[in-house]
Amino acid sequence: MKINENFNNLKASYLFRDIAQKVNAYKSANPAANVIRLGIGDVTLPLAGAVVEAMLKATAELGIAQTFRGYDDGGVGYDFLRDAIAGYYAAKGVTLGTDEIVVSDGAKSDLGNILGIFAAGSTALIPDPVYPAYVDTNTMDGNKIVFMNGFADNGFLPMPTDGLTGDIIYLCSPNNPTGAVYTREQLKTWVDYANKIGAVILFDAAYEAFITDETLPRSIFEIDGARTCAIEICSLSKLAGFTGVRAGYTIVPKELERGGASLLALWRRRQTTKFNGVSYITQRGAEAVFSPEGLTQCRANIAYYLENAKIIGGVLDKLGIRYFGGENAPYIWLQAPDNRDSWEYFDYLLNEKNIVGTPGSGFGANGAGYLRLTAFGSRENVLEAVTRLQA
Amino acid sequence: MKINENFNNLKASYLFRDIAQKVNAYKSANPAANVIRLGIGDVTLPLAGAVVEAMLKATAELGIAQTFRGYDDGGVGYDFLRDAIAGYYAAKGVTLGTDEIVVSDGAKSDLGNILGIFAAGSTALIPDPVYPAYVDTNTMDGNKIVFMNGFADNGFLPMPTDGLTGDIIYLCSPNNPTGAVYTREQLKTWVDYANKIGAVILFDAAYEAFITDETLPRSIFEIDGARTCAIEICSLSKLAGFTGVRAGYTIVPKELERGGASLLALWRRRQTTKFNGVSYITQRGAEAVFSPEGLTQCRANIAYYLENAKIIGGVLDKLGIRYFGGENAPYIWLQAPDNRDSWEYFDYLLNEKNIVGTPGSGFGANGAGYLRLTAFGSRENVLEAVTRLQA
Repeated sequence: MKINENFNNLKASYLFRDIAQKVNAYKSANPAANVIRLGIGDVTLPLAGAVVEAMLKATAELGIAQTFRGYDDGGVGYDFLRDAIAGYYAAKGVTLGTDEIVVSDGAKSDLGNILGIFAAGSTALIPDPVYPAYVDTNTMDGNKIVFMNGFADNGFLPMPTDGLTGDIIYLCSPNNPTGAVYTREQLKTWVDYANKIGAVILFDAAYEAFITDETLPRSIFEIDGARTCAIEICSLSKLAGFTGVRAGYTIVPKELERGGASLLALWRRRQTTKFNGVSYITQRGAEAVFSPEGLTQCRANIAYYLENAKIIGGVLDKLGIRYFGGENAPYIWLQAPDNRDSWEYFDYLLNEKNIVGTPGSGFGANGAGYLRLTAFGSRENVLEAVTRLQA
Repeated sequence: MKINENFNNLKASYLFRDIAQKVNAYKSANPAANVIRLGIGDVTLPLAGAVVEAMLKATAELGIAQTFRGYDDGGVGYDFLRDAIAGYYAAKGVTLGTDEIVVSDGAKSDLGNILGIFAAGSTALIPDPVYPAYVDTNTMDGNKIVFMNGFADNGFLPMPTDGLTGDIIYLCSPNNPTGAVYTREQLKTWVDYANKIGAVILFDAAYEAFITDETLPRSIFEIDGARTCAIEICSLSKLAGFTGVRAGYTIVPKELERGGASLLALWRRRQTTKFNGVSYITQRGAEAVFSPEGLTQCRANIAYYLENAKIIGGVLDKLGIRYFGGENAPYIWLQAPDNRDSWEYFDYLLNEKNIVGTPGSGFGANGAGYLRLTAFGSRENVLEAVTRLQA
């Protein structure tokens, strides 16, 4: 029996372990310190009332013979939820077939599992810096990785360059960790490029709900030509605080074919063979997210986080600290002042300000010298943190 | 961009589609007929009260800031649940470390995804007949498949034969679809064999809760030597009716190494990279399954299904129809009388008795001439069905 040797090529991930060790060491030495975590990528506000109500009802149904439900027939999501998602997209001006939407337990699962429908040894074009799972999943699957450089000069939004070739193109907009958002024109350039070279764009739209600027695209399918080159992967984690409830979905247009095969048919076959559907309770909660009442409640939470981001950004402006994001995204990506490296600035903030960020170097080589702050904390903590930053 | 060409080797799965078409055609032609489905593999009894109560409480917690929870830290399951599962195994006499248990959204996901830690092109030894997902997942991943023949003569329990070699050995006990259960002695032979040839046993224990005969093993880890050659994959779908709630777990012993690598470390890395944990609500429900009250309630449901199986088996005995299973399993695997083939007997039962089974040929070449009945129906339907069988 041989193991998958590609696992040997994975880099050990010490980022969050190292952060935890430093924070714990500081707290042990300074037990009275009120350390504020502005590095977390997890939401903190409770679920919307409409969602809780729907899940309580669904749970009770499962306890009664007449309303009990077993397997989600087919495992790709109940029609009631897929119709609700199609309605959410219709409001963005995007028309989707219910069959093109495949419901899952989250974007992270889909981002990893979707590689199974592509040939092993494919070349993935991955932005740097970016969410580290793209690199790890491609490494695990034996794919080749070509990094696309994000810098301050391109606003951390890499664009196609002469001679760039690959099979799978990752775009994450709004971006984790930089908060940068592609414009329609930029996505149109990417779509045309993917169609030209026959690549497939994996569009990670996990943070789309944070876009308030109506000129910015919230789905790749707002762009002409995307239906022949793009797959969109999205999540309810940030839209509705579902990080602990687990729901996401992947959209594969019917027109998307490669080598004569429908990628939608491949993805549905993968999911119905290696997956067995999402909790009925979760699916009823997700349906409620997309109801008028649910969307109003979820958007109030997003507005709260965006106000946090605005407060942090305003103080960075005052202090003359350069940053990206903070608008249309829950992330603030700041350049460490005085040419400090990511960990030096992390240590400074921890020791001098009792604020915890995430070192940018953890998101790729081009993250060196940057630090990620998130807007997911409480208002009280954000206000206290900015007071300390200004002190 | 190239697709994963292994998908081209998958056989189209028409079994349940063909069954549905035949049933629908019959019902259209005979609208007054009361067609009883004894083919379904899904549970029908509602969730246990203790489970519903726990999930209602967990749902309410997520709606309140002070008790809200986001990501399941690490994505391998909360300690409260893994400790409860370890306690369930301790009651079987099996000692497990909490770290050896990795919680997931179900056995089907784990059975498919676990192949990612093995080298592509591995040889899988798969019983015939068996749950079709083993074949499909290995085909998708480009593995070689060697079938191990189950026949009436070996009680549908294949054993190692001279010269049999492979990397991954699938054992499903109690078996789907035959209901056959390996004895301790038989599993000991398999464990010794796997250790000798360096293979890994994937032990599918999804139906373990139906074993009431205390001399029969409910876990591969009841067998000496299993900790160096076996992975156990289990589910709450049949133990607790979680087919629509989604929870399972995989046990990888710390001692299990191949090529110097810990398979537990590989599996945890796979799951934390391509998966993000199970719904908190589901995990609290699963914890309640393993409480004394929850187990009592779940076992009452299993006793109900086993009584259904006994009623069906008793009538088959009277009618002189040969069958396997029906004890220690929810499946009755019957040999079609008069040398009918699987579909002929299916048609006979549908048209003459208005009873729907599942043709055995859908589970592999050796299922030809057999039909699977399940015990998951209501008592009322089971009693009506056996009355018709005797008429």
